[in-house]
Amino acid sequence: MKTRIISGLIMAPLLVILVFKGYVLYAGCFVISLMGMYEFYRGFRELEIKPSYPIAVGSVICLYGLGIPLCTGIIEASPWITLWMFATVIACLLYLFKINERKLDDAMVTLTGIFYVGFFCFHMGMLGMNEKFGILVWLAVITAFGTDICAYFAGVTMGKHKLCPVISPKKTWEGAAGGVIGAMILSGLFGYFFEGEIMVHCMIIGFLGSIISMFGDLTASIFKRKMGIKDYGNLIPGHGGILDRFDSVLFTAPVVYYYVELILM
Amino acid sequence: MKTRIISGLIMAPLLVILVFKGYVLYAGCFVISLMGMYEFYRGFRELEIKPSYPIAVGSVICLYGLGIPLCTGIIEASPWITLWMFATVIACLLYLFKINERKLDDAMVTLTGIFYVGFFCFHMGMLGMNEKFGILVWLAVITAFGTDICAYFAGVTMGKHKLCPVISPKKTWEGAAGGVIGAMILSGLFGYFFEGEIMVHCMIIGFLGSIISMFGDLTASIFKRKMGIKDYGNLIPGHGGILDRFDSVLFTAPVVYYYVELILM
Repeated sequence: MKTRIISGLIMAPLLVILVFKGYVLYAGCFVISLMGMYEFYRGFRELEIKPSYPIAVGSVICLYGLGIPLCTGIIEASPWITLWMFATVIACLLYLFKINERKLDDAMVTLTGIFYVGFFCFHMGMLGMNEKFGILVWLAVITAFGTDICAYFAGVTMGKHKLCPVISPKKTWEGAAGGVIGAMILSGLFGYFFEGEIMVHCMIIGFLGSIISMFGDLTASIFKRKMGIKDYGNLIPGHGGILDRFDSVLFTAPVVYYYVELILM
Repeated sequence: MKTRIISGLIMAPLLVILVFKGYVLYAGCFVISLMGMYEFYRGFRELEIKPSYPIAVGSVICLYGLGIPLCTGIIEASPWITLWMFATVIACLLYLFKINERKLDDAMVTLTGIFYVGFFCFHMGMLGMNEKFGILVWLAVITAFGTDICAYFAGVTMGKHKLCPVISPKKTWEGAAGGVIGAMILSGLFGYFFEGEIMVHCMIIGFLGSIISMFGDLTASIFKRKMGIKDYGNLIPGHGGILDRFDSVLFTAPVVYYYVELILM
């Protein structure tokens, strides 16, 4: 469909914040986390599950607040980030103390939303704060959107064998292969022009990111299917909500982040 | 009830591993994590929720495997522990890919069990590995069991005002106060005899630990109530399962751990 390409273009302005990296991107990720969790939780309304948005907001504020001294090296990550996890789990469990009003699902969806949306997106912000390799934040977007677009064209022209008809009936193995190859080429080109020394690393990231990006896409499909909704929102009329756009980036950002932290640094 | 005291005594042999600290305690916590998660997941059978025990075991093996190089300083915690979180969340989400067989609850309970049981218990093992303050691992147990026993006696003798009748009808404010005071005194005594220099810190830990220990107790009650079971298991005949015994320690151990890491170190 053309809508897929058009909606990609509509998102372009949002990508401008990628150019600024650093605090601009960090703030952007914070806002996207808040909007994403809101959409995620709203999706559960139909299932009569009522997660706590205030707990999620509080937790994500703490996480992003913690991120700044962490990446400037003022505090060490070791106890702080696990303390954040501990406090987040405790907060979600305390939510159950009004036992007659609340279901276990309310707490568990709260927790899942914080980790799946807020924590995953946080990696994007942290990646952009990296002084040496912050530019690779583009790879999180290139692999996600590149896979999507290349898989679409490869699928339309060559698609024969269904990938996972139960979750997403239109996806094919040929499309998936096209997506991976396309993402590798695009990531390699990005590396060639902007970070020549690590071009091969960029292609490896493109390969890994492309695969995980499809899992991100399918995970969002599963959630939406279980919720009984088609789109998470209607932020961009006719093109879904913020989570519909960023479902794959949520998965690719941590992959790029860990690749940078554990292999490139 | 006498059973409360008797079951406390029956657990005494298990406390012996506390004397050894280090790797013995670490291994003990690993086993308790596995048993605890098993009991936790089994409790959901009645609700027809089927969490994935293999994912939980895999995740906890990685966590404890990671803990050893972490606390010996071979690797830095920063990317590794968040990578563990990321991988754990991804594994739970991938569990949903058999979309027709599995419910969202299956994945969310898997995730909750890993964090609530495995990750919380992990703090106890990490605390015991601390060369300088490893002995304070006793405080996690003293505050949990001390609160329980003191609150019981204070409640029986002076209890009048109900604390939270909906969750746990027998608990009273007088009992809670007695529990906190008792835990502070016991922790202070422990400090006086074993770590004289930080006796006041021990009492502060006793105070904080005692309060959170009651939350741990109530959280376990809530889970069991929602599951429709009285006890998690029957490991010690007539005295419940491992989670029934350690529900409070799961909460106190992280408190002692973070107090040591962030204030004493």
